[in-house]
Amino acid sequence: MTTTSQITLAATPTGPVGPSNFGEQVVPLPPLADGEFLVAVRWLSIDPTIRGWMAYDTYLPKIAEGDVIRSLGAGEVIESLNDKYPVGTRVTGVTGWQTHVIMSGGFTIPDGVDYEDALSVFGMTGLTAYVGIEDIGEPKAGETVVISGAAGAVGSIAGQLAKAKGCRVVGIAGSDDKCNWVTDELGFDACINYKTADVGQALRAECADGIDVYFDNVGGEILNAVLGQINDHARIILCGAISGYDDPTLHAGPANLVNAIPRRAKLQGFIVLDHYDRAGAAVAQMGPLLADGRLKSQVHVLDGLSSAPQALADLFTGANTGKTLVRL
Amino acid sequence: MTTTSQITLAATPTGPVGPSNFGEQVVPLPPLADGEFLVAVRWLSIDPTIRGWMAYDTYLPKIAEGDVIRSLGAGEVIESLNDKYPVGTRVTGVTGWQTHVIMSGGFTIPDGVDYEDALSVFGMTGLTAYVGIEDIGEPKAGETVVISGAAGAVGSIAGQLAKAKGCRVVGIAGSDDKCNWVTDELGFDACINYKTADVGQALRAECADGIDVYFDNVGGEILNAVLGQINDHARIILCGAISGYDDPTLHAGPANLVNAIPRRAKLQGFIVLDHYDRAGAAVAQMGPLLADGRLKSQVHVLDGLSSAPQALADLFTGANTGKTLVRL
Repeated sequence: MTTTSQITLAATPTGPVGPSNFGEQVVPLPPLADGEFLVAVRWLSIDPTIRGWMAYDTYLPKIAEGDVIRSLGAGEVIESLNDKYPVGTRVTGVTGWQTHVIMSGGFTIPDGVDYEDALSVFGMTGLTAYVGIEDIGEPKAGETVVISGAAGAVGSIAGQLAKAKGCRVVGIAGSDDKCNWVTDELGFDACINYKTADVGQALRAECADGIDVYFDNVGGEILNAVLGQINDHARIILCGAISGYDDPTLHAGPANLVNAIPRRAKLQGFIVLDHYDRAGAAVAQMGPLLADGRLKSQVHVLDGLSSAPQALADLFTGANTGKTLVRL
Repeated sequence: MTTTSQITLAATPTGPVGPSNFGEQVVPLPPLADGEFLVAVRWLSIDPTIRGWMAYDTYLPKIAEGDVIRSLGAGEVIESLNDKYPVGTRVTGVTGWQTHVIMSGGFTIPDGVDYEDALSVFGMTGLTAYVGIEDIGEPKAGETVVISGAAGAVGSIAGQLAKAKGCRVVGIAGSDDKCNWVTDELGFDACINYKTADVGQALRAECADGIDVYFDNVGGEILNAVLGQINDHARIILCGAISGYDDPTLHAGPANLVNAIPRRAKLQGFIVLDHYDRAGAAVAQMGPLLADGRLKSQVHVLDGLSSAPQALADLFTGANTGKTLVRL
């Protein structure tokens, strides 16, 4: 009988996630039914949205206490009753934080793409950046694009996509090291360390012509500062609000939202699950950029299933640069 | 020599507008230059945005102290050096709060349209409602549409346009009399008196299927309550934020803005000046509705130039129902 080692939701978080929120268990898996296949999970994708799933009904139902932590992941088919996913196929999908999972569908990873890229630039992370920039922000050459969470998984790709379009790209990140990486390695024009700078003042200095597009991964005070400096017809991509995820109280929203009226600004929330139909276009655009070095994908890897809780917690303390993955 | 009696900005307001903000003067007008014409102003359009113009650079420069109050208005050409606007032509345009004005262009009021309709349903007011509903909100039959400032000039028309599309329309207004007018005369399905009801709770009762479209004329706490109850792919029309115009301090924004992400909501600010190209379509749609009684246009008329300041102040205390006009 096959078993799977799981990390479960032991207690719904009300503040920063820590060891008490998680449990570990080994459970037996039932025999495969027709159309199913068994995946040995090799990699887990660690994303801020997991923190939301642990605490609230959002765009997906809350994870129930006792259930395995919901997560994207990737692995190899080791048993199959589905002709489309023969043994040896590498797939991505919602694996959960566990070593083995029975699935009935998933995305097949093409030959020549490694697991890391399949879960980052060619996965939900890259698609999120692509849809935000291409379909919502639509920056034009010469416009000024601001990216918060600039050293994070999505922000780092989003900024490079805007840079490839000929925009002035200004990142916001949480340390000088991250800012240096964003400018020196990724080619952003500037990066503001929000922990040491007055963000409003720094944005005025770095965005002398105003802000045309803002890719918002963090919400909160930074969104407010941006809204105070937007140009006419600005587009605000509401992708994440990581600054509030760890905090059970709803904080005041951006007072400068009122500026969206005279500036004719659009704020658009989105969830990448709605945009799978854009995956082909995303890969077609980002593949060549990745191949010729104009797009760099950095992964931050932790080893072992039991490191997943810490990997998630690190997203909220800023310990990661680029895409966080756990290797099983 | 022709003179014009003007109401000017005596002192920039920092709170509710009152007599000390306004001056009166009579000034001579220069002779007409080629292409110009002289208009005897008959009606003034009193709009909340004037309060913004008096205080801040917005989408137009702030009115300078000593200058005539900027305002839409309508009147009759009484002298002309412009063949397109012969004597007797009735025009609308930016007349300012004054009895006479030299113009070089304007919108000619068609025969059969009276001044009141030219400044309300067929003017900027109607176009604002039309663009907000048709081009931004895009409500579909069966959807739930919430309108704040429902008894105001724009809100009352916007709600009727949504109703004509087969939507459930819920208004929010500031008195039981206004609410009764909105439901009994204009045909809204329900109306919430925000001064006596818990708006969040009342919205939950009246919008049992959630909120698909919100036409926001007021901003503030009501916007926040709506954002907490939006459906997937909700559209928020950011038209006005009258709740904040009289107050020099920026208040906290809506904490529930974060809900725009999981609900994939769009918030879109707009200024009607950008949408003159939609005026023909607006008249084509609203004309027949007005003619057959499905669209009712109510005006609130004050008499005499010197009543204009009070007419403006009344917009912020809720003394008006429908479109406020001053008749000279």
